[in-house]
Amino acid sequence: MFSYLNNDTIAAIATPPGKSAIGIVRISGPDAISIVKSVFRGADIDKAKTHTIHLGHIINDDGDMIDEVLISIFRKPSSYTGENSIEISCHGSTYILNSVLNILVSKGARLAEPGEFTFRAFINGKMDLSQAEAVADIIDSENKTAHHIAFNYFRGGFTAKMKELREKLIELVSLFELEIDFGEEDVEFASNSQLLQVLNEIKSEVKNLSDSFSLGNVIKKGVSVVIAGKPNAGKSTLLNTLLNEDRAITSKIPGTTRDFIEDNIIINGISFRFADTAGLTHSTDEIESKGIAKTLEKIRMADLVIYLTDITETTSFELKDELNIQNITKPCLIAINKIDKVNSPEKEKLMDSFSSAFENIIFISSKYGYHIDDLKNRIISLLDLDKYTGDQTIVSNARHYNILNNILSSISDIEKGIQTNLSKDLLTTDIHNILNLIGEITGMAITSDEILNNIFGRFCIGK
Amino acid sequence: MFSYLNNDTIAAIATPPGKSAIGIVRISGPDAISIVKSVFRGADIDKAKTHTIHLGHIINDDGDMIDEVLISIFRKPSSYTGENSIEISCHGSTYILNSVLNILVSKGARLAEPGEFTFRAFINGKMDLSQAEAVADIIDSENKTAHHIAFNYFRGGFTAKMKELREKLIELVSLFELEIDFGEEDVEFASNSQLLQVLNEIKSEVKNLSDSFSLGNVIKKGVSVVIAGKPNAGKSTLLNTLLNEDRAITSKIPGTTRDFIEDNIIINGISFRFADTAGLTHSTDEIESKGIAKTLEKIRMADLVIYLTDITETTSFELKDELNIQNITKPCLIAINKIDKVNSPEKEKLMDSFSSAFENIIFISSKYGYHIDDLKNRIISLLDLDKYTGDQTIVSNARHYNILNNILSSISDIEKGIQTNLSKDLLTTDIHNILNLIGEITGMAITSDEILNNIFGRFCIGK
Repeated sequence: MFSYLNNDTIAAIATPPGKSAIGIVRISGPDAISIVKSVFRGADIDKAKTHTIHLGHIINDDGDMIDEVLISIFRKPSSYTGENSIEISCHGSTYILNSVLNILVSKGARLAEPGEFTFRAFINGKMDLSQAEAVADIIDSENKTAHHIAFNYFRGGFTAKMKELREKLIELVSLFELEIDFGEEDVEFASNSQLLQVLNEIKSEVKNLSDSFSLGNVIKKGVSVVIAGKPNAGKSTLLNTLLNEDRAITSKIPGTTRDFIEDNIIINGISFRFADTAGLTHSTDEIESKGIAKTLEKIRMADLVIYLTDITETTSFELKDELNIQNITKPCLIAINKIDKVNSPEKEKLMDSFSSAFENIIFISSKYGYHIDDLKNRIISLLDLDKYTGDQTIVSNARHYNILNNILSSISDIEKGIQTNLSKDLLTTDIHNILNLIGEITGMAITSDEILNNIFGRFCIGK
Repeated sequence: MFSYLNNDTIAAIATPPGKSAIGIVRISGPDAISIVKSVFRGADIDKAKTHTIHLGHIINDDGDMIDEVLISIFRKPSSYTGENSIEISCHGSTYILNSVLNILVSKGARLAEPGEFTFRAFINGKMDLSQAEAVADIIDSENKTAHHIAFNYFRGGFTAKMKELREKLIELVSLFELEIDFGEEDVEFASNSQLLQVLNEIKSEVKNLSDSFSLGNVIKKGVSVVIAGKPNAGKSTLLNTLLNEDRAITSKIPGTTRDFIEDNIIINGISFRFADTAGLTHSTDEIESKGIAKTLEKIRMADLVIYLTDITETTSFELKDELNIQNITKPCLIAINKIDKVNSPEKEKLMDSFSSAFENIIFISSKYGYHIDDLKNRIISLLDLDKYTGDQTIVSNARHYNILNNILSSISDIEKGIQTNLSKDLLTTDIHNILNLIGEITGMAITSDEILNNIFGRFCIGK
């Protein structure tokens, strides 16, 4: 599908389908200006400067005016793709946009593949591969934090640092190779300890990035929280309290579906998916057992569990037993519910007893909304989501995560090799492997069309 | 909702909802440039020339970059609205577009009402009211001819001529009024025959426009064709032949739904809606009678009826009887079907007999697709759709049609007035009425907010 060799002129509609004020057809490539010139009645765009806008009409072969348009001219290399490009801003009618696109194609443009404009930006050096990948993430991001992470990537995020470390490694490997060329002469241009030093720098950088993935992934996908507990602990009421409180905010975002509103809320710019579960009991009843099996499965898939307990029904000792039986392995926040139902000083006594028995505990009344904000803050901090300050780079791309882990294991191979006095000749091969892996992130060392097709295939048409 | 007095700064998303390569937020009004300047990091847009494009970032109050954007600057009066305007071209993410819009609003812009940008173009004299109305028609048009009619309107279509005639009438009425001012002195500045001459010019123009409405309306709404006839005449086969032949073409247009494909085809750039019906028989069976009643209702709503007859089952005499009973009052094309089933010379004999008995007749085989193109051409010519050359102005707007008819009846009032020697004083009132009516089309004489709200309320947001 994609090829480094294609340098024809591509065109596509760049705005979503549907009636609207404005719709845009974009065209990029060596013939972009001459093709548009042949169908445009207005200023002489041959002479037009880059980044200027011109009013005129698009004409078909019969001389019929298809639309009054504004065309924006971007001259090579000052365009998104790095090529000559034009954006044709039309009335937002599907009929018009298709007509304009068809006219461009009839004059020699080719319909662009999804992501092909960004692919060209990549091959023309306007952005590296990880930045190109971030473009799709930017468009996909539906909340503040996911957008922030994608935008950090897009702005060059971690690749600047990786490129710098790669340069150091290249310098070192070329010294190693020089040494090998000198053969038997006993000269040393670079020592293993120098190599280890650079590898350590890379390792520390890569480790941080790789560690950030679980956070990045959770933010990108949305955090899954399951509310569990015995029957009548108030699970549904808590769910409703959480959802209703935030529903107004969520529904303000167009494009969110009804399904989405029903169980998703955004806390601190991060999407959370809250799920109620069947009550956990010891049951010999077959149907009830099935419900419990389902709950356990939900817990297995969750990022966090809120374990809810009715303060009037369960003591801290009983709760300890309950939790021992459930054996929840996920991060778990214990929420002691219905504190509105007990009065001082009984209340304080109970709370003390729970607090001394458990660490991650909070006292709430889902019915009256007591401490629901505290509950949210505790969820954030339990998942380390408060560690995301917005400044550091977070890896949310699975392809990058895999490459980062491969770099770590290659580094560990070299370290072992040095310990076993492996020849520099063999070490060099491993170093090249690391250089390639870093290159696969930035796109400097991508040779497989399949990888590129996977990356750009998830883009929308026109990007 | 709308007011001539509003001159605040308005903002809206101008592209359809959904993920895409590009999404646009537009802002217009006296503070457009200063508001964008306060949230934009890039070139100094205060100094930027009109029709130039600038790369930079939109920043929120916390200094976070929301997106890398291109902003297009249009300075008063060289913009769509006639005011200072900016289009912010963002990544096509709903989150980003909403964020950018919210930032603009937080800096003092107001969310635009549907059509408010075009309303401003109208009040600032960038287009007259009929042209503004055509903008919505352009966006709504889904086929070549509907688009062509709307675009003709948009380009000033008939209003240039109407404005010219209005000027003539104004000149005349002022002479009449001058004469009235002179009172008893027996001078005549303009004669009734001069008035009649101008009114005749207006009448002829308005009559042509008013007459074009049935054509314009049919093209705008799509032509409804009903296929009727006795059971087993081949109605469903004909429908399938018509639809299948064209289905490939129709389905090429994105945005057409499955329902649409199933019964709509485009012939010569005009949408046709074909409907099959239950066979017409003389029946005492209650259920069958209900089917027939439904068919008759469909015929009543149709623009044209294809009456299908099996050449092997019905003679021209029988068909005459059949049609006499059905009493179809709509334009009707008789299609004699299954000509593949009879051989020469029997075939020629039958065809001669039908041809001499009926005028609008055609011989087809829906099974083998014989003469289906002829059938389409005959439909076009029977409905006078071939009279649409693409050059003349066609009225497709019901509001304009009503006003045109009111002008005709006012002219007829004046003509009667002159015949009965009505005083110039009274004639003058009628002339002013006509001036107002013409002004209601172009917007020069619109004073009712309700009318404006109706007109602009059907626009999409951001236009």
